[in-house]
Amino acid sequence: MDEFELIRRFFSRDAQATDVGVGDDGAVMTPTPGTQQVQVIDTLVEGVHFPANITAADVGYRAVAVNLSDIAAMGARPRWMTLALTLWDKDELWVEDFAAGMFAAADEHGVVLVGGDTTRGDSVVVSINVTGEVEDGAALLRSGAKVGDTVFVTGTVGDAAAGLELLQQGEHDEFLVGRFLRPTARLALGRMLVGKAHAAIDISDGLVADLSKLLAASGLGAQINVENVPVSSALTARFDDKTALQFALSGGDDYELCFTAPADAVAAIDGITAIGTVTADEGLECRRGGEIVDVDVSGYRHFT
Amino acid sequence: MDEFELIRRFFSRDAQATDVGVGDDGAVMTPTPGTQQVQVIDTLVEGVHFPANITAADVGYRAVAVNLSDIAAMGARPRWMTLALTLWDKDELWVEDFAAGMFAAADEHGVVLVGGDTTRGDSVVVSINVTGEVEDGAALLRSGAKVGDTVFVTGTVGDAAAGLELLQQGEHDEFLVGRFLRPTARLALGRMLVGKAHAAIDISDGLVADLSKLLAASGLGAQINVENVPVSSALTARFDDKTALQFALSGGDDYELCFTAPADAVAAIDGITAIGTVTADEGLECRRGGEIVDVDVSGYRHFT
Repeated sequence: MDEFELIRRFFSRDAQATDVGVGDDGAVMTPTPGTQQVQVIDTLVEGVHFPANITAADVGYRAVAVNLSDIAAMGARPRWMTLALTLWDKDELWVEDFAAGMFAAADEHGVVLVGGDTTRGDSVVVSINVTGEVEDGAALLRSGAKVGDTVFVTGTVGDAAAGLELLQQGEHDEFLVGRFLRPTARLALGRMLVGKAHAAIDISDGLVADLSKLLAASGLGAQINVENVPVSSALTARFDDKTALQFALSGGDDYELCFTAPADAVAAIDGITAIGTVTADEGLECRRGGEIVDVDVSGYRHFT
Repeated sequence: MDEFELIRRFFSRDAQATDVGVGDDGAVMTPTPGTQQVQVIDTLVEGVHFPANITAADVGYRAVAVNLSDIAAMGARPRWMTLALTLWDKDELWVEDFAAGMFAAADEHGVVLVGGDTTRGDSVVVSINVTGEVEDGAALLRSGAKVGDTVFVTGTVGDAAAGLELLQQGEHDEFLVGRFLRPTARLALGRMLVGKAHAAIDISDGLVADLSKLLAASGLGAQINVENVPVSSALTARFDDKTALQFALSGGDDYELCFTAPADAVAAIDGITAIGTVTADEGLECRRGGEIVDVDVSGYRHFT
C-alpha cells in the first residue's frame, strides 16, 4: 500500500467537513472573526517519548493529547490539526490502530484533521500541529503572573511518571499507566481560566520545572507548600511517600495545568488545588512544614 | 546543549515579531480579516527524501521550499510556520547550518517561524507546517479544471530529478543540482493565478503524475503535446533527448506549478508554457507529433 492509498484509507475521514479537506495541496479553513490563532507542534519519537511496546492506538491518542494540552494552557479552543507521520515500515494494521487512537482524542474535543504527510523512516516519528482559536487578546501566557497570585494545579500530578515507570518494569496499574498512555488535556479548564488566570503553563516536564519556566517568563518567584501538592490515592498506594513526592514534583507527562490567579477569581472552579503564592523574589522555594525542601529542578528529559 | 538551549540559540530569532513567538506553550497570531487559511505540512526524511551527504543548510532550505510550493499551488500568501525537527544527535554546527538554510528560504517570502519542537531520534526527520492566507473563496484547488482550459506549467521541468541523479553519481552541475537542493516555490506566480486559473497543483511527484491527480480531482482528462513541455538547456546539454523527456515527464521534485486556465486569462503572465488542453474524456493522453506516447505514470516514489 503506497502513501496515497494509506492516506486515503485511514486519514481522509474528515475530508467532507466544510471548506477543509485532506487531498488538495493544502487545506482551506475559515477563521472565526474576533479570534486570534494559537498554533502548537509536538513530536513523539518511538524509544524516546514512548516505549516501543505500547499500542499504536495509544501512540495516536497521546500524540494528539500532548498538543491539545498546549492549546489548553493558552486558554484556546482547538479547531484543526495536521499530521506528519514517519513509519519504519508500512504495516497496515499499525496505521489503522494509530488512526483510531488519534481520532478518539481529536473527537473528544471536535478537532478536525485537515492535512498530513506520511513518510518512511527508521523509526516511528509523529508530529502533530494543532491550531486553536482564542478571543482577541485573551490568550493565557506564561509571562502574566503577578505578585500575590495564588499558584494552582489541576487534577493530580506524578501519576504519569509513576505509570511510565511501572510500564517499563512490566508491571501494571490501570489508573497510573493510563495516565501516561492517555493523558487528559485540560481544555475545559483552560477555557474557564480565560480572563481569570494571569499566567498558565501545562505540566509536561514536571511541576517544579514547568512552574519555574512560568516564573522565569514572568520575572517573579514563588513559594509552594509541597504538602498541598495534589497526588492521587493510586500513587500513594503504590509508592512510598518520598518516591510519590518525587514523582509529583519532578515527574513529567501529566499534562495538567499550572496557573497563577487571584484566589477569589477562580473560587468557583472545581478540580484545582492551591499550592502556593507568587513572590517578588525570583526563584521557586519549596517548603514542607515550614522547612525548605531541595527538589531536583532539572526537569524531565524523556524516559531514556 | 539541551533542547531548550538549542531552540533558544538557533530558532528564537523571530520571537520579537508582534504577537507571535517561540517560547510560550503556543504561538498567537492574528488572521487577516477577509481571508481564509491554507495549511500544509510536509516531511523530509534523511535517506528517503534527500541523500545523507547534502549540507544541513540545503536540508533546511528545501524543507521550507517544498511546503511553500504547496502554498503557492493554492494561490495563498505564506505567513507562519512551525518546525518539528528530529535529530540523530545534537550536533550544534549542523543545527546552526540547518537554521541558516531554513531562514534563508523563509526570509525570501516573509514567513515567520512561530513555534517548534526539537527531539532526538535515529535519523534526521524534518516536518514543517506552513499557514498561508488567501482571499475568502479564492483558493486554487485541483478540482476546478474546465473542458477547453489550456494546461500550463511554470518554468522548466525535469531539472531536479536530473540534478538528484547527478548528485547520487557524485557528479556536479550547478544549475541542475541546485534545482534539486534549493527549489523555487512559485509563490508570486501562484498569487497571479488567483481569479484566473481554474485548477492548480505543484509538481512534486512528476508532471504526468501530478497533472493526472489534478485531472482526476476535476473528473476530466487532457491531451498534452510532449514537444511543448519546457525543458532547460542545462538538461538537454547533459542528457540525451529520451532521458531528458523521461525526467521532464516523470521526474519529481521540480516544485513548478501545473495549472489549467482559459488561455486568454493568463496571456499577460510571463514564465508559463502551454502544453495541452483539458478534455471531457478522463485520462491523460501524451502525444508527440500526433502519435501517442506511453509515459510511466507511476509517479515519483522518493529516491531510494
